[in-house]
This record gives sequence, C-alpha cells and structure tokens, in this order.
Amino acid sequence: MRIVVTRQKIHGHPASEYVDLLRERLPDHEVVLADTPQEEREQIRTADVVTGEGAAVEEHLDEAASLRLFAGVYAGVGHLDLDAFEEAGVAVTNASGVHAPNISEYVIGALVSLARDFRRATRQQDRREWRAYPTHELYDSTVTVVGLGAIGTAVVERLEPFGVETLGVRYTPEKGGPADEVVGFDDLHEVLARTDHLALACPLTDTTEGLIDREALRTLPPHATLVNIARGPVVDTDDLVYALRWNQIRGAFLDVTDPEPLPEDHPLWGLDDARITPHNAGHTPRYFERVADILAGNVERIADVEAADGDGPELENRVV
Amino acid sequence: MRIVVTRQKIHGHPASEYVDLLRERLPDHEVVLADTPQEEREQIRTADVVTGEGAAVEEHLDEAASLRLFAGVYAGVGHLDLDAFEEAGVAVTNASGVHAPNISEYVIGALVSLARDFRRATRQQDRREWRAYPTHELYDSTVTVVGLGAIGTAVVERLEPFGVETLGVRYTPEKGGPADEVVGFDDLHEVLARTDHLALACPLTDTTEGLIDREALRTLPPHATLVNIARGPVVDTDDLVYALRWNQIRGAFLDVTDPEPLPEDHPLWGLDDARITPHNAGHTPRYFERVADILAGNVERIADVEAADGDGPELENRVV
Repeated sequence: MRIVVTRQKIHGHPASEYVDLLRERLPDHEVVLADTPQEEREQIRTADVVTGEGAAVEEHLDEAASLRLFAGVYAGVGHLDLDAFEEAGVAVTNASGVHAPNISEYVIGALVSLARDFRRATRQQDRREWRAYPTHELYDSTVTVVGLGAIGTAVVERLEPFGVETLGVRYTPEKGGPADEVVGFDDLHEVLARTDHLALACPLTDTTEGLIDREALRTLPPHATLVNIARGPVVDTDDLVYALRWNQIRGAFLDVTDPEPLPEDHPLWGLDDARITPHNAGHTPRYFERVADILAGNVERIADVEAADGDGPELENRVV
Repeated sequence: MRIVVTRQKIHGHPASEYVDLLRERLPDHEVVLADTPQEEREQIRTADVVTGEGAAVEEHLDEAASLRLFAGVYAGVGHLDLDAFEEAGVAVTNASGVHAPNISEYVIGALVSLARDFRRATRQQDRREWRAYPTHELYDSTVTVVGLGAIGTAVVERLEPFGVETLGVRYTPEKGGPADEVVGFDDLHEVLARTDHLALACPLTDTTEGLIDREALRTLPPHATLVNIARGPVVDTDDLVYALRWNQIRGAFLDVTDPEPLPEDHPLWGLDDARITPHNAGHTPRYFERVADILAGNVERIADVEAADGDGPELENRVV
C-alpha cells in the first residue's frame, strides 16, 4: 500500500521522523512524505492511506480515488467533516490514548508538586534560603478524577499504590471503572464535598463546559487542589481566580486555560497558587512512535483482510 | 502506665498535639507532658515510658528507676548511646517507617517534576510567557532505587503502575525486594549504566558515603536524573556540581545536601538543573499520628504481657 504522510510538526519533531518510524514498521509498504501543499495534493490522489493533521486530505478528498484510511495524528478528529469521509468510504482513525502515559504522569506530578509545595522550594532556592516549611501529603486523601477515558483511567491506575481513595465522575457511571467509586455528573457536588484533590480529564462538552464554577469551588474544601489537563473552559477562569484570591481552595495546576493562550495581563499568571504549563502535558518524545504503532497495526490488518478476501477489518482507534 | 512526653517540636507542631493523640489512643494510661528541663527530670524519675527526642531521657537514665521503654520520635536513634539503654534494661524503639508515604510521594513528584520540567513552567509563568516546550516521560524508562528499606520499598511500589523497569540496589540482594531486579553494591556501575532515573534512599554508611561520585556520575547516561532523599554525603557535592555544569546528567532533585544547610555562596543554589528542598521531604502533617500509633500499640503490648505474666513482648520498631 501507498502511505502518504502530509506536512506536520508535532512537539518540535519533524514529519520525517514519523516517516522513518513508519518505514521501520511497514517494510513491505511504501511510505512517502508530502512536504509541500503541491506534493500533498499529488500524493493524496494515489494514496491508499493518508496520515497527518487532516486539513490536506479533507481538501482533496474528492480526488483521492484509492484512499481507504485516513489516520489522524491528533487525539481528536473533531476538526474534520467526518460525514464527508463516511460518504467517500474512507475509514478514519484518531490517536486517542497516545497521551495517556505522559499526561497521567503529569497529573501525579502536579498533585505531589502542590502537596509538597515544590514551587515554594524554587522561591526559597532563588533566595538561597535553607528553611524547612510545612507540607501536605496525598496518602489517605480522596482524589476525584472527572472523566475516565484513557487518560483518566491511567491517572486512577497510577494512584492505586498511593493509599488514596479514588472517585470517578463520568457520563455513564454504570460502566464503572478503576476508581473506588464511580458516579455520574448529577452527583458532582456530593463528590466534591469530600474531595481533597480534583483532576479534570474529561472532554469539553455542553455538560462539562463551566463545570468547575463558583458553586463547585465553594463545595470543595478549602485545602482542595485542582489539576486541569482537560480543556480550559471546563473551569470558569474568573471563578477560579476569585477562589484562589480568597483561599477558597489551596492551589491549582493548569495545563489548559480559558482563554488560551493566556493573555499577558491575565491575573492568573500572577497568583503563586496557580501553576500554569503551556498546554504541553500532552508532549511526549514518544508521540510519533505511538502514532506509528497504531497506524502500522491498522495497515497490517487491512492488508491481511485483503489477502483473505474477507470483510472490512477491525481497526484500532476507528472513528468512521 | 505513666507515659512521659519530653519537649519536642516536629515540623512546626507542638508536643501538646502528640500528647492529645496519645491520650486518645491510650485512655487507660496516664500521659503527661514535661515541658521544661526541670519537669523532664522529675517526670522521667517515675515514668514507665518516655517518648521524645532522647537527650533528656539519656541524661537522666540512671534516675529512671521504673522506665521500661524509650520511644524515639525520629526515624533513627543513632544519636543515642544505645548500650546505656541496654544496660539499664530499657527497651528502645524508633519511628522508622513513619516517613514512607510522604517521602515516597516526594520522590515520585521529583521524578515527574524533572521529567516534565515544571521549573521551566515556573520560569515562563514569571515572564507570563505561553510557549510549549519539549518534555520527557518516565514511561518505559529504568528507575534505580538505592536502598530498599521502608522508603525505598514504598518508592518502588508507587512506581509499579508507571510502566517502568525498577532496579534495586541493597546490601543484601539475596533478600530480594519489590524491584524487578535487585543487586548488591558491587554491581552499582553495571546498574547505573542502564539507569534513566536514580533515587537514593539508603542509610549513610561507610559503603554509601560518596557513593555517587565523579565515577558514578560518569557512568550514568547524560539524560539521567538524580533524586536524593537519603543523606547529603551519599553524593559527592563537588562532583555533582561538576556533572551538572557540564551536562553530564540532566538534573538533580535534592532534599539533602553536603554540607547542610547549604551555605549561601554554594554554587548548587544557582544551578537551575539542581532543585533543592530544605531537608523537609520527611515532613508530614500526620507525623505525630503515626508515631502515636506505634507507641500506643507497643504500650498495649507491654500491658497485655504483664497481665498475662509472660515474657517480654514483641515491640514494633524495637532497636534495643
């Protein structure tokens, strides 16, 4: 099969790395890099598989006569017109799950960093001040994770040996999950009232937009900490600034904000109990490796099914 | 029994909290606080049990006619003349293990903080700079823990769901342990050569003093990170400064240093890849609770044995 890699740079890595990783994994197939808009258009016309961000393939979908699979390199494909792919008979997969190891590590690190007040250590180090200061611990506390997809699940799994109670909040609590207790969004306040640490790992939807607002922040105990690696608008930023200013919660560790990027004059930057990372919890040096693993598996599945002349294959991370 | 609590302040908490926790746990026994040197001397004379830092009880040991147990509130009792206690027929216990939850959390947080470069996030936040930056991850790496006592074991246990290979280094490798592989100190360099992250959790002994010296730092790969929650002199500080200055390892997260406190003009303070906390990884708001749990259990054991007129009881954390 002809696999076309369209232009993309992810986490500072060039697309050529992705091409190399695909070639290693798929020696019996042809992997080509389309590195200009003109190349993208020409290569997509004869591609069996296209992988990339999606804009190019969407634009030239009607010319892609032999295309069977578009493999998106982002966790979501919400930016694409999926109906158009469906009509064209092109399967679509996403890169869901590739971030689970690194983002779940980030969440654990953020929880500990807030508990042990590592930022205070940085401030003291800058002053060359050796002075012990009181800290907190996670052990025997209650950690609530909102959203139990690949990332939320990985967070709960990593918390297991920490001796904490884990609560999960999800749309379909009947599905259960790895947390000690799983509830639906209707029970959010009941859960927040007994939450020491709150981690947000849910998608942004009508239900979760503004989920952590003034009311939710009032329900959390004053020692509570918040980690957001979901999407900025899941938290009402003004309400969070208010809660931090008046010590209604102890601290927040945010990889995402609303608005984003955070404007230079935004008060959140200056609150020492707000710790902000620039939407890079998803960064991993293994990003292209994991995406290549998913795509290589799917290409082999398609090839196997064709060899056996069977029905369409079961693809990993298939969306369309 | 008469339980005397001598003067002590731990992590900013007053001894009166410890007294209250003991009274809760031992309602059938008398718990008194000796809050001056004079009180200490008088109370120790008629005490069955003394608990505290040890200096006072050691000084007045020959006057402590009814003393059966000294319960130290520190993890170690190396500062005491244990032979004198032995001769006086006084059992000694320490508070070993009380730090395991909080220090192991610290180690995991330190590993993630170095991997995700949370300090860079702080620097960028101070400049109100929203810019993604590349990071690392723990997943699929090799973490070596030197020392598999209560703390080292707790570290390895917490790493279990992170998808890392764990190597343990200990005096008695034949004892095994929770790590994927356990070796003795003779194999240190062989292990360091394949270590991505090194956590020191060993006691300070002739073997471990200067263990991480220029040679060890040369053997570690250049992307390696180091976390020290053992004792400062386990690392040769000059060699560490050299290694960090010449990027021989990626970073160090140190709760202990040599010398300690670190002098204001020490170069380690100014190295941004050295992160220093002021020997407070052992801090936990639950310190007195955990010490009180050990002592209360031991007092009940002594009382039970006396009621049954049996041999001396098996005490938790007994040293003498």
